Amino acid sequence: MPRYRLTVEYDGTGYVGWQRQDNGRSIQGAIEEAALKFTGETITVRGAGRTDAGVHALGQVAHLDFQKQWPAETVRNALNAHLGQAGDTIAIIEAMPAEADFDARFSAVARHYVYRIVNRPAPLALERKHALWAPRPLDHAAMHEAAQLLVGRHDFTTFRSVQCQARDPVKSLDRLDVTRDGHNVTIHASARSFLHNQIRSFAGTLRVVGEGSWTPDDVKAALEARNRAACGPVAGPEGLYFLRVDY
Amino acid sequence: MPRYRLTVEYDGTGYVGWQRQDNGRSIQGAIEEAALKFTGETITVRGAGRTDAGVHALGQVAHLDFQKQWPAETVRNALNAHLGQAGDTIAIIEAMPAEADFDARFSAVARHYVYRIVNRPAPLALERKHALWAPRPLDHAAMHEAAQLLVGRHDFTTFRSVQCQARDPVKSLDRLDVTRDGHNVTIHASARSFLHNQIRSFAGTLRVVGEGSWTPDDVKAALEARNRAACGPVAGPEGLYFLRVDY
Repeated sequence: MPRYRLTVEYDGTGYVGWQRQDNGRSIQGAIEEAALKFTGETITVRGAGRTDAGVHALGQVAHLDFQKQWPAETVRNALNAHLGQAGDTIAIIEAMPAEADFDARFSAVARHYVYRIVNRPAPLALERKHALWAPRPLDHAAMHEAAQLLVGRHDFTTFRSVQCQARDPVKSLDRLDVTRDGHNVTIHASARSFLHNQIRSFAGTLRVVGEGSWTPDDVKAALEARNRAACGPVAGPEGLYFLRVDY
Repeated sequence: MPRYRLTVEYDGTGYVGWQRQDNGRSIQGAIEEAALKFTGETITVRGAGRTDAGVHALGQVAHLDFQKQWPAETVRNALNAHLGQAGDTIAIIEAMPAEADFDARFSAVARHYVYRIVNRPAPLALERKHALWAPRPLDHAAMHEAAQLLVGRHDFTTFRSVQCQARDPVKSLDRLDVTRDGHNVTIHASARSFLHNQIRSFAGTLRVVGEGSWTPDDVKAALEARNRAACGPVAGPEGLYFLRVDY
């Protein structure tokens, strides 16, 4: 069966997350529904990352199989038309033919996320659901310094949700940079794979470093504790964007 | 009475526009309600520009008078707290004391807007209400060339709404630039003041130039017609942002 690779953008506000669930509309479920309307086939769409409720994507990657070959542009346009009709805030940026052994999840060699913080006294209006508001001044240099203590191969038990289903809490974190452009403080995170809530746990912990209530050494101690209770507050989903996948 | 100058950001989606109206919630009305909750005073807030329903602002400017002097930060924080409680997507970025003769509308010497177009085949997901979607390729150089024919002092009857209440359709347009950054095509418009729907009329007309169905000469002819019927299609409110006011 012909396989297609999709690049997907979405506003995660109001969805239960990427993964199909009984308690509300998911991104995966919405795309599967659009595929059903397009070809009449009941299809499973597999994504590179299972983003949580309220988390956004600029470049989630997914794959699906149709029974017959379609021009890639037809796949993109038909799925977008049905998603638009359903009122979904999901867009297929690109559809392309993929090899039969391409798997959006297992073929991925690197995943890239950003976490966006707006650091200003006034609350957010235009970006209320699209960034985290941090009213207290953030020392982004201290945040970046602390972040470097997390880069590398570590047991990240402290920074994963107790619901995390990964067998092994040991992961290699390739990049965790903190940059500032005016009021915008951005955390850039890259790894082959992430644990559940790992980036939001990093973001919330780095935020308290930026506010001065934690030192970079506190972050090191939290990592070494290998204990979820040692984590800083977990940052909300509204600032997190799934940016890109490398294959 | 102590006067304050406010810099206001808002997501205009779901509002009837800046101006208080009977048929729905306005930005002006929401700020006046917040002021009433703050001091118990019934206050009129005057804005530099009366943006339409669905139009956004990053730097609208407004003024209001309180009966007593408050620290400027208290004004900002109190208004923001009440706006937040009411669920408004409006934020007071800055409040500052103003001279008694400062008038947000009449003291303005220049108003700056941008109109944002996303030019790509896929519909918008994250920015559905925050930019205009143009799926057909846009020639931004042709748009910019046509825009230059509109700069200067002209009778802009073609480019104003039939509802426009300004006495004189002759205005000086200081800047109308079209730039591209990847998929993002941005129209930058600056003038002492604008007519009703003027920038959206420009944007819709320049869009059809970008698509190749109008030439720059067609735009010149439309301007010279001084006839609303000669205007191109009016672009939607979702791409328009009130950026800044000079005093």
